[in-house]
Parts: sequence; C-alpha cells; structure tokens
Amino acid sequence: MKRIYLDYASLTPIDKKVLREMKKYSTGDYTNPSALYASAVKAKKTLEDSKTRVAKVLHAHADEIIFTSGGTESNQLVLNQFKGKKIVISSIEHSSILRNVEVTHIPVDSRGLADLDLLKKSITAETSLVSVMMVNNEIGSIQPIQDIAKIVRDARKAFGTEIILHTDACQAAIHLSLYVEKLGIDVLTLDGAKIYGPRGVGALYIRRGTIACTRAGTHNIPGIIGFALALELAEKNREKETARISKLKNFFFEELKKINSGIKINGSIENSVPSIMNISIPSIDGEFFVLQLDAKGIECSTKSACLRDEDESYVLKAIGASSKTSVRFSFGRKTTKKQLKKTLKIIKKIV
Amino acid sequence: MKRIYLDYASLTPIDKKVLREMKKYSTGDYTNPSALYASAVKAKKTLEDSKTRVAKVLHAHADEIIFTSGGTESNQLVLNQFKGKKIVISSIEHSSILRNVEVTHIPVDSRGLADLDLLKKSITAETSLVSVMMVNNEIGSIQPIQDIAKIVRDARKAFGTEIILHTDACQAAIHLSLYVEKLGIDVLTLDGAKIYGPRGVGALYIRRGTIACTRAGTHNIPGIIGFALALELAEKNREKETARISKLKNFFFEELKKINSGIKINGSIENSVPSIMNISIPSIDGEFFVLQLDAKGIECSTKSACLRDEDESYVLKAIGASSKTSVRFSFGRKTTKKQLKKTLKIIKKIV
Repeated sequence: MKRIYLDYASLTPIDKKVLREMKKYSTGDYTNPSALYASAVKAKKTLEDSKTRVAKVLHAHADEIIFTSGGTESNQLVLNQFKGKKIVISSIEHSSILRNVEVTHIPVDSRGLADLDLLKKSITAETSLVSVMMVNNEIGSIQPIQDIAKIVRDARKAFGTEIILHTDACQAAIHLSLYVEKLGIDVLTLDGAKIYGPRGVGALYIRRGTIACTRAGTHNIPGIIGFALALELAEKNREKETARISKLKNFFFEELKKINSGIKINGSIENSVPSIMNISIPSIDGEFFVLQLDAKGIECSTKSACLRDEDESYVLKAIGASSKTSVRFSFGRKTTKKQLKKTLKIIKKIV
Repeated sequence: MKRIYLDYASLTPIDKKVLREMKKYSTGDYTNPSALYASAVKAKKTLEDSKTRVAKVLHAHADEIIFTSGGTESNQLVLNQFKGKKIVISSIEHSSILRNVEVTHIPVDSRGLADLDLLKKSITAETSLVSVMMVNNEIGSIQPIQDIAKIVRDARKAFGTEIILHTDACQAAIHLSLYVEKLGIDVLTLDGAKIYGPRGVGALYIRRGTIACTRAGTHNIPGIIGFALALELAEKNREKETARISKLKNFFFEELKKINSGIKINGSIENSVPSIMNISIPSIDGEFFVLQLDAKGIECSTKSACLRDEDESYVLKAIGASSKTSVRFSFGRKTTKKQLKKTLKIIKKIV
C-alpha cells in the first residue's frame, strides 16, 4: 500500500537534487573551513558562496547570514541575546521560542492573527525584542509582518530606542517572499527540514548593525550547501507551487464540507499559507481520527510534533479552538489531487 | 597533484558506508519521529535503535543517550546545567567548554596531563561538576580519566555531595575504549565529524540518575543513523587501526628527528593518542611552515581550527610550549607510510 503523506509542516522530505549536491561536498576535497590549507580554503569558499546564495534569496548581504543546526537553534541564538531584557511575542509562537524568557504575550484573534492595537500598546521604552512568527506551524496563519514592522519602527522613533524585530520564517519559506528589506524585519529564522533541505541545518539572517550572534563548532559544509540549494529551489518554484497547492487546499476543503457541513477551519482559509489546513470535525476525537487515517495509509497530525504527548496545543487554545478535535493536514511537492481524492474517500468512511 | 591530508583531528572525511546508510534513511519512509503515523513510527524506531547501538559501544543503556548537533552543542548542553555553580576543569579544555562559566582551572604538566594532586585539592563541597577532556585536540594528551574518576568518587564520599564527572571524548573515540562504567564517568561527549561520521551530529551519554538534559528541535534521522554506524565502525576497527597508526606515528617522529634533531614534541609521545602529533621545529614559524606544506599539497594545522585567527593556543601556553612554532600533524584511516615518506621528503626540503 502506497502511503499518502500529508504532514509536510512537520518535515519535508529532502529533495533528490539537494541530496546529490550534499554528497558531492562530502568528500575529503572539502574539509574544516577554519584551517589554512587548500581543501579548507575550498570549504571556506563553499561556505561563503552558500551565504551569498542564501542572501540573494533574501535580498540581503552574505555577511548577514549565519548557519545553525536548525530553526530551533536559530531562535535560541536570537533569544539568548535578550536574556533579562523585555520582549514581546504573540501568544502562538513556536515552543522553541518560549523557553527561559520573560515576555509580554500579544493575544491573537480567531484567525490566529496578532492584535496590532495591543501590540502597539505593549511595546514600551524598555522593549528590546519583538518576535512574531511569519507563519504559524499549526494553523498556517500569516502574520501581517509589514504592519508589525511599521509599529516597531514607529515605537523606535517615539522612544528613541533600539527594538529588534525577529520573525521565525521556517514555515513561510516555501510559499511567501523572504525579501527582508520589504518585510522590514531585522532577524529571520530558517530551517532546512521545512524546505526540502537537509535536517540539522538552519540559518539566521541578521541585519547589519543590529545584534551579534556567533556560533561555535565546525561548519557542516555538505549540510550548508544543501540548505542553500534547497532555499534557491523553494524560491524558484514558489509562484507555481503556491498556485498549485492553493487549488488543492480549496478543493480539499470544499469536498470536506460536502462530507460534513459542520467541519470548521481552525484559523482561516484566507489568512493562511496554502500548505497548512487545520480543521475540527464535530464529534470526532482528533487523535483517534489521525490513528484511523494512519491505519488506512494517510499521514497527518493532531498538533505540533514539538509538543510533548501530554501537552495540549497553546496555539489552538489561543485562537479559542479545541486541541481535542483538531487535525492538521499539510500539503507539499508530492501532494496530488489523486491523493486528496483518496484521502477524502477514506475520511468519508470514517466520519 | 594528489593532496595528502594530515588534519584528521580537525575533521574526518565521512565514511562511504555511513554516507550510503544516511541516504537510505533520507527518504519519505522516515519522517518526524514525534508524530503518530507509520513513517514517524519507523523514524522513532530508527532513533531508538540508534540509541541502542551507540549505547552498546559505550556499554550503557539506550535511555542514557541523546543526540545533538555536534560536540560543541553536547558540551554546551552539559555546561548549561551548571550555570552559577562551581566547576573544575583542566587548563587545556576545548574552547567550546570555556564560555560563560566560572571555573577553577587545574594546571597541566609539560605532557598535557592534569595535576591530580591539585585536582584533588580544588574539589570542594561546593563543586558541582568536574570536566576533563579525555584526549586533547591539539596535542593528543590522554588524561588519566580513571584516576580522575576515583578522585571525584572519593570527594563525593568525603563531602556527601553530588559531583558530576564529564569528559569530552570527541578526539578519543577512534583510539580509546569508551566503556563508560570502567572509565567511571557520568557524562560523555561525542562528535560525528571526528569519527568518520556525519557533520552536524553529536551525542551525549548521561548516566541514569545524574543530570537531565533535553534538547528541542526535530531529530535528524539520517544523521543519527549515520552517527551510530560511524561509532560502531570506530569500535570495530579500533584495535587494528590503533596499532597501524601508532607504527606510522613512531616512524614519522623518528624520521623527523633525523631531519632535525632539535625537533620537540609538544606534549608527549607516550601519553597521547597515535592520531595526533604536535611538534615544534627550531627557528621555524608554524604558520609559515603550514602554508609552505600546503603549497606542496600537504594539509596540516598550526592550532585548533576552533580558535580565531588572532588567538594563540591556550593549550600550548598551558604546557609551556610556543604557539608560534607549533605544527599539528594528525593521522587517520587513509594515512599511509607512502604519504608520510612523501611528507618527510618535502619537510626536509623546507627545513
């Protein structure tokens, strides 16, 4: 039985081109870029080229890019710069952001969008960092980053202080532009495992003159070159893939409503990326439903895989939805209409 | 021109078998182990199997192993548990250990071995952690871990306190036994990039009932399976490879002395791993020498690649040697007598 994977928000399978590229750079021709000799110089050049390639997708400078071991580490590196300082985040930030910091939480509406009036009021002369994820990993809601950036700019002027705006763009990179200047953000997090790139590799964009993050340890050259290629491919395929997946998402939702008119979107269809759809089905237990689908070869999620078994989703709680009934379908490069039709058939039998 | 790589202590090239294994696990059949469905269950099983395989090499339990993004992160995870507490380390610990902690440094002798009497005296009722690297990355010195473990055990009894003994075994894994019970250590750091395994993957052994380290982020399944295989291969080849490399090291040193009788070992030949040899050549500038060798296709190092350009080696300083004149040759699986003969010929011309 060929299984149908509908959990791309949890992990994207690595692109074959990326894997091939990584293999090329896994030989002794590319060693530790910190050394002095020829193979180290080649590795260093590969590192710098990769920074340039990532920077190009972001319309940024190569010296504004650093590579990490993934989105979680990227976020932690940023937060570590603000220990003991005041920060403002939305109430649906990723769990990796929520550790060991004292924060002001901005509530979100039922669509999962941050309340901009409250955000404005929450930023004070003491605020050092505002961190809002570009796309939420559970419900796919897209934050109005440009509006948030304007609020932060205005606050900087009003208070005459430095306030850094950080966004976690791990779930955004496939469908949204990462043009950092236009977005108006200072620091941006990316993750290879969400862009059909290598696992265990992430990146940070840090605008010149804002904060200084450094990272110890040997550079993972094959991983870094793989990440750069994966991000370029995401950029190259973005428009076409977004149109294709949007159609699939709409088709899936319309057909679901025919099966059970009580099906509810957690978040909204309009203000979310096409790849993520979080729903509640009346009188259906989310976890049991996911296991029933799994038994029929369909792979989807109840909640973020980053939450522990016993934790309920703070994202769904924040938008006033129930963790117990929710199911997340997320779509990607190998998702086809045929797969969704088969999935719908199986759902119809279960519901 | 075929280049001769003699910098295995900086980075070991990834084993082809390991690379093949990683590719097998890079498909959509193995997804995010935290999810509920079949491919996630396969990933979770792979993760657990890898823990079991690593644990077996260490004669430990699977639940005592966690995977990280490398040796640096492993060390940092350990140190983060001891913030604000008193720790004792040797004066030649790896730079990743030396960040943001208040510590008592134990001096080392000219061989690079920690002064055990001073170690004994430095441990007080307030000491929470003793961290000593099993093998130093610059000079290869092997610490008497079992003696150190006994001192720590005695101190625990004397003070009635918990004192954790951590060792960074990144440079040890190829040539020394990692039998944690026999070594008497509580926490042990490993790095894939030093054992012909994947870059960006490391591990921590944490003895049951000692400390609790957790790590956020998606597991890198292909990297983890690659790491487990690399460690098994290191274990399997250990005896034979150690004998082979020891012979090569002795040959190289004897021949070097014939070229210039003033050549001095930084550290010692006896108390070091066969893979690392750090020397000073009279009236030779280390950095210039390394560049001259590079021009002739020989790749070796002046100091740890983890140090910044402007930093001098605190390891060489600690053993009373000079950073300026030192050169590190490090040997590995592809090192042959023929390569060393060629290297000696080139050195003879330069010196």
